[in-house]
Amino acid sequence: MAWTRLAPVLTASDADEQARRRAAEMDAADPLAGFRDRFLPLPDGIVYLDGNSLGRPLRSTLEVVAAAIREEWGQGLIGSWSEWTDLPRRVGDELGNALLGSAPGEVVVADSTSVNIYKLVMAAAAARPGRDVLVTEADNFPSDRYVLQGVAQRLGLTLRLVPADIDNGVDLADLAAALDERVAAVCLSHVGYRSGALVDMRAATQLVHDHGALVLWDLCHSVGSVPIDLTGARADLAVGCTYKYLNAGPGAPAFLYVRRDLQEQLSQPIWGWFGQADQFEMDDTYAPMPGIGRFQVGTPPILGVLAVREGVRLLAEAGMEPVRAKGQALTALAAELADRHLAPRGFRIASPRDADQRGSHLTLAHPEARQLVRRLADGGVITDFRTPDRLRLGASALSTSFTDIVEAVLRLRGLAL
Amino acid sequence: MAWTRLAPVLTASDADEQARRRAAEMDAADPLAGFRDRFLPLPDGIVYLDGNSLGRPLRSTLEVVAAAIREEWGQGLIGSWSEWTDLPRRVGDELGNALLGSAPGEVVVADSTSVNIYKLVMAAAAARPGRDVLVTEADNFPSDRYVLQGVAQRLGLTLRLVPADIDNGVDLADLAAALDERVAAVCLSHVGYRSGALVDMRAATQLVHDHGALVLWDLCHSVGSVPIDLTGARADLAVGCTYKYLNAGPGAPAFLYVRRDLQEQLSQPIWGWFGQADQFEMDDTYAPMPGIGRFQVGTPPILGVLAVREGVRLLAEAGMEPVRAKGQALTALAAELADRHLAPRGFRIASPRDADQRGSHLTLAHPEARQLVRRLADGGVITDFRTPDRLRLGASALSTSFTDIVEAVLRLRGLAL
Repeated sequence: MAWTRLAPVLTASDADEQARRRAAEMDAADPLAGFRDRFLPLPDGIVYLDGNSLGRPLRSTLEVVAAAIREEWGQGLIGSWSEWTDLPRRVGDELGNALLGSAPGEVVVADSTSVNIYKLVMAAAAARPGRDVLVTEADNFPSDRYVLQGVAQRLGLTLRLVPADIDNGVDLADLAAALDERVAAVCLSHVGYRSGALVDMRAATQLVHDHGALVLWDLCHSVGSVPIDLTGARADLAVGCTYKYLNAGPGAPAFLYVRRDLQEQLSQPIWGWFGQADQFEMDDTYAPMPGIGRFQVGTPPILGVLAVREGVRLLAEAGMEPVRAKGQALTALAAELADRHLAPRGFRIASPRDADQRGSHLTLAHPEARQLVRRLADGGVITDFRTPDRLRLGASALSTSFTDIVEAVLRLRGLAL
Repeated sequence: MAWTRLAPVLTASDADEQARRRAAEMDAADPLAGFRDRFLPLPDGIVYLDGNSLGRPLRSTLEVVAAAIREEWGQGLIGSWSEWTDLPRRVGDELGNALLGSAPGEVVVADSTSVNIYKLVMAAAAARPGRDVLVTEADNFPSDRYVLQGVAQRLGLTLRLVPADIDNGVDLADLAAALDERVAAVCLSHVGYRSGALVDMRAATQLVHDHGALVLWDLCHSVGSVPIDLTGARADLAVGCTYKYLNAGPGAPAFLYVRRDLQEQLSQPIWGWFGQADQFEMDDTYAPMPGIGRFQVGTPPILGVLAVREGVRLLAEAGMEPVRAKGQALTALAAELADRHLAPRGFRIASPRDADQRGSHLTLAHPEARQLVRRLADGGVITDFRTPDRLRLGASALSTSFTDIVEAVLRLRGLAL
């Protein structure tokens, strides 16, 4: 689809000019500004604040994927499997090292987030026999909740929901109240898809462990936007997608993490040949390979895994500290401008107020959010809508400018007059 | 990896020259010969007979994938999901119509073959409560057997194996003997991965139905090489991969088929948001969408789905009748040459003798097959090894020439002197 060119805002006040000048200064001082050139260019005049839903393509990804088709696949042919077979584990190690705070051999790129949640929750439930409750937050991402509903139904377990404030995420006291000796596994999102609320991974993991359950972290909205320390938090399990802040493309393969000491204890339910030891011996009986590879299933999508590697390497080059600092500065600017320009027009900030308590998107509530998102897009400012009345402004530290934030807020003000 | 250039065969006898002239004549008369130019070129001098394992890239796939990165993803951004969301179903319809003999709304591109087998076998087992046996062939592809072993273990079912002649595949009398009123589901490969043996889908399906069970066909080695009529056979369920004769790339997404009247009766176990009705309403409770879409799980890999579409369209353009005729002619030539040149050197044909009874690869048995495959590859002729002592010659009707077959056999003879 073609986006309409962004027309200049007609009612520019002095305050608007001041905001634009300030944003231009912030952009000029931004140590990550140069990374914008690493992405394929946007259509003229487009402001893109939806990298939290679909990150933009890197120039290098186009080159790497095209080269892989021509050379690795087209010239190396079947022989390239000697390089490809463990690629999902090698890229998993790069991803884990750069972005997750995990050790080598704890992460693999595989399947979709939802399939990975299924595999790990089934494994976790089996590892806690006699416990009959799964726990998640009431406002967890729908696919997580649906997968858990399906597992609970099949296994005859109860799915217990932690009440969630849809602006501020899960309160640890509410989580604690949902935990007891019946709980086998808890699935939580590190950053909430709707509010952007960031959960204290270390504290929440400790709470879950205090009750003898396993915790599965969904990192979809935090990986690449927030520093993650799975080892430091003693997290058990994690999954995440790569098409948001990792910019690996629509439906690019997901990843999963299993802490090393749990790997041999857990049996995931989908026994495919890429989880098998000595795969090409094609033995009669499934015998999972040692290590994280046993959580793989079928033939891995190589072009997608290569795209994941590009996204990981760009973030590794930038470093998660500056990425986090800029992400916070971008949403902080959005919040400040929203308070000034949008609150008088019926908007409310529906994310945690403290930038330390949220990921890299800021959510606004407005009764006409659905229509406003559409009209903003018609004018070339791309955000997204989430039920019931939420507009998300997504800030991707490597591709979003401070000027983007100002333009989006001013445009939104113009529409909501 | 770089393949060594194919050196000329030094000991060319008159019979060899005759074989080469005949192959050249067959190539000149081949109505599908022009399709070879639709593929990216091979390295100089390479003979590639492993398209049954990894099909070669199409020129159009490189163009389409690169354009999708630049334009649909890079320019259309998140808005492209309006085109992408039902793409796996639209491509599924094209695939089903051109290659499977299925009706619209019965096929979707999703996940890997192994994950799809898992989903459909779990669904089938749940649809036959009280039945406690799963059946597959003893020589089914390892991943199929492993998935079934895992399902049987979790559900407390027995996995019953149909004895298989590893040269000639499943005998229908043996299948019949394995069936009774305890059987919930039967998983069979339409074309055997090792022998290339083709099973009579209609007759086998009828046998399974006679006992009230559901049949799941693995089409990995038949889709794109053998005409398939799922509707005519009254098949219940099917899966297949797209990286062999569909040339969609290493680990490209698989597909699944569920006969329309079964779709609402079956509940697959992995409840993801891409199987949900009104997905973006993000309702509290999973409610599967009507139709084949409910067998999807997570976000579909769009670039892979586009590559599948290219492979499907090329085969649709060629037509499965000529593709099948040429595939049979290629393996028949290989068999004839193997009898003449290789049988005296310790090779045995380990595929059905009748070309109507096999798919599009011919398997040879030789005690040193593993080493011979390696030495052939060192000389630029790419085949593959399968346990225990099998060498597979894969014929892809759209990219393999009759000359390729002759060169491979003569080279093999030279190595096995």
